[in-house]
Amino acid sequence: MRKIYVVGIGAGDPDHLTLQAAKAIGRTDVFFLLDKGEAKASLVELRERLIRGYSKPRKRIVEGRDPDRDRNPSDYTGTVADWRHRRSLVLEELIVEHLDEDETGSILVWGDPSLYDSTIAILEEILERGAIDFEFEVIPGISSVSALAAKHRIGLNRVGQPFQVTTGRRLAEGWPEGVDDVVVMLDAQQAFTGHPEADIYWGAYVSTPDELLASGRVADVGADIVRTRTEARERHGWIMDTYLLRRRAGEGRTAGE
Amino acid sequence: MRKIYVVGIGAGDPDHLTLQAAKAIGRTDVFFLLDKGEAKASLVELRERLIRGYSKPRKRIVEGRDPDRDRNPSDYTGTVADWRHRRSLVLEELIVEHLDEDETGSILVWGDPSLYDSTIAILEEILERGAIDFEFEVIPGISSVSALAAKHRIGLNRVGQPFQVTTGRRLAEGWPEGVDDVVVMLDAQQAFTGHPEADIYWGAYVSTPDELLASGRVADVGADIVRTRTEARERHGWIMDTYLLRRRAGEGRTAGE
Repeated sequence: MRKIYVVGIGAGDPDHLTLQAAKAIGRTDVFFLLDKGEAKASLVELRERLIRGYSKPRKRIVEGRDPDRDRNPSDYTGTVADWRHRRSLVLEELIVEHLDEDETGSILVWGDPSLYDSTIAILEEILERGAIDFEFEVIPGISSVSALAAKHRIGLNRVGQPFQVTTGRRLAEGWPEGVDDVVVMLDAQQAFTGHPEADIYWGAYVSTPDELLASGRVADVGADIVRTRTEARERHGWIMDTYLLRRRAGEGRTAGE
Repeated sequence: MRKIYVVGIGAGDPDHLTLQAAKAIGRTDVFFLLDKGEAKASLVELRERLIRGYSKPRKRIVEGRDPDRDRNPSDYTGTVADWRHRRSLVLEELIVEHLDEDETGSILVWGDPSLYDSTIAILEEILERGAIDFEFEVIPGISSVSALAAKHRIGLNRVGQPFQVTTGRRLAEGWPEGVDDVVVMLDAQQAFTGHPEADIYWGAYVSTPDELLASGRVADVGADIVRTRTEARERHGWIMDTYLLRRRAGEGRTAGE
């Protein structure tokens, strides 16, 4: 039976790699790379460095072309579903063509495969189509959220309190109900600027040599973050940032909470 | 200057250790252990195994008595604050007594230090008192939540959707507003039983040899999980479990979302 590992390789620091992930890389015959069209050079370098460092000499590396994707679609969920579907077709073809029946493949995922990543869903879609069969196993990784919190030396939750993980798109619709602590990923629109009363713990390229960190009341540091973010995005050609927004407990709470 | 690492050591599997954490353990002169009164044997074993495996020969290990804590207090937040305060006094005394000015100490934390753990807050409290000074650095770890998701091979979020991380205590008050996916930690009261319509992805002692997993509609598997949980808790003397509850998108949503 074919075996495929979905390996979380951490948020950017090569030393985020777990021993479990290093061992999975070491057992891998074929690495499947689906490259984004964008030039995320430091991500590609990290992946190459880890493969070079921990894989066996005779592994193969096969690359597929990641399908293009509309980044600002009107139908977000439908567009993502369509992109996943096309991605699953590309990956299925690579598996059929390059992974022998008794071999082990790996897909390396930045951060943690359980957090805003489509690899697991894509493998499930391939299995559901039923044309090929394989086992797969997920190796957890250090997420960009854990890395952010570690760098700021903060907890994500306050004592006994919940927090929400959400997207910039959703935050732009308003502060989520029932929580005072919100972790935001995938924010292309800098939705934090709508919440000047909150404290922000922001980071970009966290735990890479290009790391940028900032924190403070949004009213005080928000404009600086917007400027820093724009400059960094131009310089690198891409940006990956994450932040925690924290407001005074109970502020804006609905009655009954 | 004294240096202290807060090291996330992962959710139970020794191979969850990151290279960064192994290096921090290797640089440590003094390990500070604050033991829970409870007999969490497998946690203690994991910690000892990692110290044995990655520390330098001449390290020292010092142990403090973790203050007792009321597990079912009427004033939860106040009780936790008081417990943290007493814990900070115990740890401060250990640091003063055992960590020389130019030495490095470590506190090993199960899971990830940013998630429902008090170590960072305790160190901040010691620093705020101002009697001693030290640098501290947080090393992120694989959380029990990432480990759970990996074992069930699921994402925590659905496409473009938020999720909430909360406690059993809060879930018992009702399904959180604005989310269909809820990760629950610290649930002594099995609050999932109040949501028979949801799907549950449950795990206890995840990624240890005692791991228990179950999933399905709460209406179908909830009673089994309650039974399994009770038996396991009796057998081991303690339990650490986590779960994701997932309901059909939009079910119970308030208007406007």
